[in-house]
Amino acid sequence: MGISLRKARTIIRKSLEKGREMELKPLSVVVLDAGGHVQAFEREDGAAPGRFSIAHGKAYGAVMLGMAGTAQMKRAEDQAYFMAAVNGVYGGQVIPVPGGVLLRDKKGAVIGAVGVTGDTSDNDAAAALAGIEAAGLTGEI
Amino acid sequence: MGISLRKARTIIRKSLEKGREMELKPLSVVVLDAGGHVQAFEREDGAAPGRFSIAHGKAYGAVMLGMAGTAQMKRAEDQAYFMAAVNGVYGGQVIPVPGGVLLRDKKGAVIGAVGVTGDTSDNDAAAALAGIEAAGLTGEI
Amino acid sequence: MGISLRKARTIIRKSLEKGREMELKPLSVVVLDAGGHVQAFEREDGAAPGRFSIAHGKAYGAVMLGMAGTAQMKRAEDQAYFMAAVNGVYGGQVIPVPGGVLLRDKKGAVIGAVGVTGDTSDNDAAAALAGIEAAGLTGEI
Amino acid sequence: MGISLRKARTIIRKSLEKGREMELKPLSVVVLDAGGHVQAFEREDGAAPGRFSIAHGKAYGAVMLGMAGTAQMKRAEDQAYFMAAVNGVYGGQVIPVPGGVLLRDKKGAVIGAVGVTGDTSDNDAAAALAGIEAAGLTGEI
Repeated sequence: MGISLRKARTIIRKSLEKGREMELKPLSVVVLDAGGHVQAFEREDGAAPGRFSIAHGKAYGAVMLGMAGTAQMKRAEDQAYFMAAVNGVYGGQVIPVPGGVLLRDKKGAVIGAVGVTGDTSDNDAAAALAGIEAAGLTGEI
Repeated sequence: MGISLRKARTIIRKSLEKGREMELKPLSVVVLDAGGHVQAFEREDGAAPGRFSIAHGKAYGAVMLGMAGTAQMKRAEDQAYFMAAVNGVYGGQVIPVPGGVLLRDKKGAVIGAVGVTGDTSDNDAAAALAGIEAAGLTGEI
Repeated sequence: MGISLRKARTIIRKSLEKGREMELKPLSVVVLDAGGHVQAFEREDGAAPGRFSIAHGKAYGAVMLGMAGTAQMKRAEDQAYFMAAVNGVYGGQVIPVPGGVLLRDKKGAVIGAVGVTGDTSDNDAAAALAGIEAAGLTGEI
Repeated sequence: MGISLRKARTIIRKSLEKGREMELKPLSVVVLDAGGHVQAFEREDGAAPGRFSIAHGKAYGAVMLGMAGTAQMKRAEDQAYFMAAVNGVYGGQVIPVPGGVLLRDKKGAVIGAVGVTGDTSDNDAAAALAGIEAAGLTGEI
């Protein structure tokens, strides 16, 4: 269930490197396992103190719903009360925007999620994807 | 971390003085440190009893997100469900309107925030700025 | 209802001065009104970031129950499940130890409470009393 | 405010290495900044899914109260209702046992905390100390 700490570290390091390469604002990156539990997290110097909760919320919703950030955002825009209700059952822990990226294994099974926050939602997602690909995994943004 | 109690007192007193000079309604002013924790607070006589939570919510969101009240309000207007979700992960403690003012040091690092409430959001922000400037600091409204 | 901001300031300043005179650890002092709402608060430099919540919890229980910290502590020691249940109905906001001091007017009516934290509970209460007396009020520890 | 991500990484890696050297069960290590906010976290393969919350709870109480795990445990043993009440005001986020280690700078100011969980509380604390010392910092267990 989930990914190894070794892979999680690679995802985080390479996501942060991508952020530096793209000259993004300081990023925070979390990796959750297939049960939605925290495997690893890093917050770059200069990032706001509350960024763990935002990164976590992006990834947590992805795992719990089996739906990546872009699809969650579309649902929130189409049917705001649904995502509000989802947040009710998940204790307010879901941030339904891009930057929450689902991790799948080669058979397509969800093995976890990555949450990135700090810049625009689209840039956050791009940094996450770079990290995921560097770890030899497939991400769904 | 954050600002000294001496500076916090100056910010509060001068914000309240500005409120009297502008003939605003009774104000309440909180100063939070760089971790979003309360350093000092005062509520003027005649202010409603619940004003601590409003002042705190304006400043707390600013620190936790690294985003001042005006930018939070814009985000709430553009993408209401996002700010609702943010409030979920922060325990409902964020009031995303002007009057939550970020404090930065000379290098631009966030060292805390001021939250003012009692009059219109714009007047609240003006009073906060007056207090912040009197303390020799820079505020981002 | 409650005390004036002027009196609250005096209580806080004189409590902190007493703490310096007694060479206590850095103190945090809150003044609540007769409804249990925050009137004013200050945290000395060097105090731990979470001290607002402790000071508040001492004073909040005193106002809500009409029972000062020493009496609350005795009740907690005699009947721990009762104070646990009290915390249930008050949202976990009560810290039942000395340092939560009830404020009464000349007729004995409760007009608020002071909460002090940072040193031993007894020293916290002594600092609170010094501030309360300096403001011409009567405290019940 | 707090420590750099570079130092946090060193603390985590060296704590985990110490755990392998001592042949402890899989460990989880969190580093919090001076405001109690997550800087970095890693959970070893084989650790239970809920270990983030335990590591966090050990470190969070240390920062918020300015009191390391050993002192918190003593207080919980002497005055159980007090630590229960403390958990009320901090939202149930405090785990008052060894393994929550305060980080201080050279002047003694708290700059964060490390939380380690997975083996016995004493072994957790030993692993944390090894990591902290490897980063050139001083820990208070």
